[in-house]
Amino acid sequence: MPGQTRQDLLTFDGGTVTARADQLVTEEPLELRLVAQDQEHPVSVTMRTPGHDEELVLGLLRAEGVIKQASDVLSLEPWHEEGRTQANVMRLRLRSGLAALSALSRHTFTSSACGVCGVGSIERLALRAAPADWTAGPLSPELICDLPRRLREQQALFSATGALHGAGLFSSQGEALAVREDVGRHNAVDKLVGWALARDLLPLTDHVLVVSGRVGFEVAQKAAVAGLGVICAVSAPSSLAVDVADSFGITLVGFTRARRFNVYSRPERLALPGVPMPAVSSP
Amino acid sequence: MPGQTRQDLLTFDGGTVTARADQLVTEEPLELRLVAQDQEHPVSVTMRTPGHDEELVLGLLRAEGVIKQASDVLSLEPWHEEGRTQANVMRLRLRSGLAALSALSRHTFTSSACGVCGVGSIERLALRAAPADWTAGPLSPELICDLPRRLREQQALFSATGALHGAGLFSSQGEALAVREDVGRHNAVDKLVGWALARDLLPLTDHVLVVSGRVGFEVAQKAAVAGLGVICAVSAPSSLAVDVADSFGITLVGFTRARRFNVYSRPERLALPGVPMPAVSSP
Repeated sequence: MPGQTRQDLLTFDGGTVTARADQLVTEEPLELRLVAQDQEHPVSVTMRTPGHDEELVLGLLRAEGVIKQASDVLSLEPWHEEGRTQANVMRLRLRSGLAALSALSRHTFTSSACGVCGVGSIERLALRAAPADWTAGPLSPELICDLPRRLREQQALFSATGALHGAGLFSSQGEALAVREDVGRHNAVDKLVGWALARDLLPLTDHVLVVSGRVGFEVAQKAAVAGLGVICAVSAPSSLAVDVADSFGITLVGFTRARRFNVYSRPERLALPGVPMPAVSSP
Repeated sequence: MPGQTRQDLLTFDGGTVTARADQLVTEEPLELRLVAQDQEHPVSVTMRTPGHDEELVLGLLRAEGVIKQASDVLSLEPWHEEGRTQANVMRLRLRSGLAALSALSRHTFTSSACGVCGVGSIERLALRAAPADWTAGPLSPELICDLPRRLREQQALFSATGALHGAGLFSSQGEALAVREDVGRHNAVDKLVGWALARDLLPLTDHVLVVSGRVGFEVAQKAAVAGLGVICAVSAPSSLAVDVADSFGITLVGFTRARRFNVYSRPERLALPGVPMPAVSSP
């Protein structure tokens, strides 16, 4: 089905581990290039779920005030040359006389995003992040299951407003070192990394990032840059978050409940019953 | 409490309407300005919940590869001059020899965001959006309560992945015209607006935007630019989303359940029992 990516994972459920496959929401970058006077200029990169990409670009251009109506767009189509098509790159031609695209260019996601494919984004991220190191022993499943509760205990605002993303930095013993909340999922993680940076604690070897919601590319890349070895999320990851975790040696746990969770990458950092434990080694 | 904003609202609950106050998560822009050679350059605007702002900036600078360690930052403090302080504007001085801030400048939120305060962001938004018009009659509370179910009915992906934001464009009769899903909350709304733009349906007078989750500034501003009169959300709005809705004449409904919802702005578009109905007028 479009928009979904099949992913192998392990499910821990009340003491039993099962290997299975599940569907993740697909996350990939969409790069927009403006064609003017036969030259092509990249103007933005947006992480999105593929599908209805023309609508996405039209809506974004309208929201940013670049166009007023559909006829302001002369053409908008996937990059295509000599029989090759890049579905994640779109070429845009605009009616002349429109406002500059400076507004739009500021919409670009992050410096590590690249429009060709998720792999390109991960390659760019590798310029700033090294594979995670882990010297502590494996984490117990019971500790993993309890981390969301420990995060909520410290989330002062959530119960009052119901609208905050929480993120916590935990030691490998499960001690909460810092908890931050923000209307933006990525902001809460930035605040944690900033907290650690101010204390000269980077890279965050042997630390666990716990997040109250979902994990997309942005949160995963921030964890990778900070050197975090484990991400534990209450909700689902995106396909690209799993790719980032896998590439940078991060153990990614999702759908964490009181007795249950899924492991999407690097299960060797967890003491899972019945799973052969490879020797813990630095990647 | 920091991070919360008190908001007056109406609660519809099984036929009864109550006026009360509740706490919303505070959302405000944070503008970062780089000071170099005694000149100040704005480099980014990020929507965030105030608090731990220095950590946020440090974490963002680290994630984007601008700094490696805390000592790369010579100073970082709220804008302050002649006894006046702007808590939403921070001045940054960096050690010389660091990479350019071009990566960071691309992190800027949207062209309508402004770092001084939410009011400034709304004023800039007003350059692109007109107050919403509404010519249809008031919507029944029963219809409002049923809109999330109608959205879910059409959300093909969510049940499979658990990680998608859904957004639907509905007529004032509650008919689903288009439903889009995306890993990004704002993308789903962009896709809807793009759908409408391609059909020359803007402004979306007498249409309702239904979203599966929360409503922050970004979704509210996209609705304002598209001329939508009603936003109906399953979860909570942010403080700035309510300010945008109020400024642009949008009826903002949140925490929508089978028999219950909250109204944060412009209740006159809903046929609420026991509430005096002002004549419907264009703003």
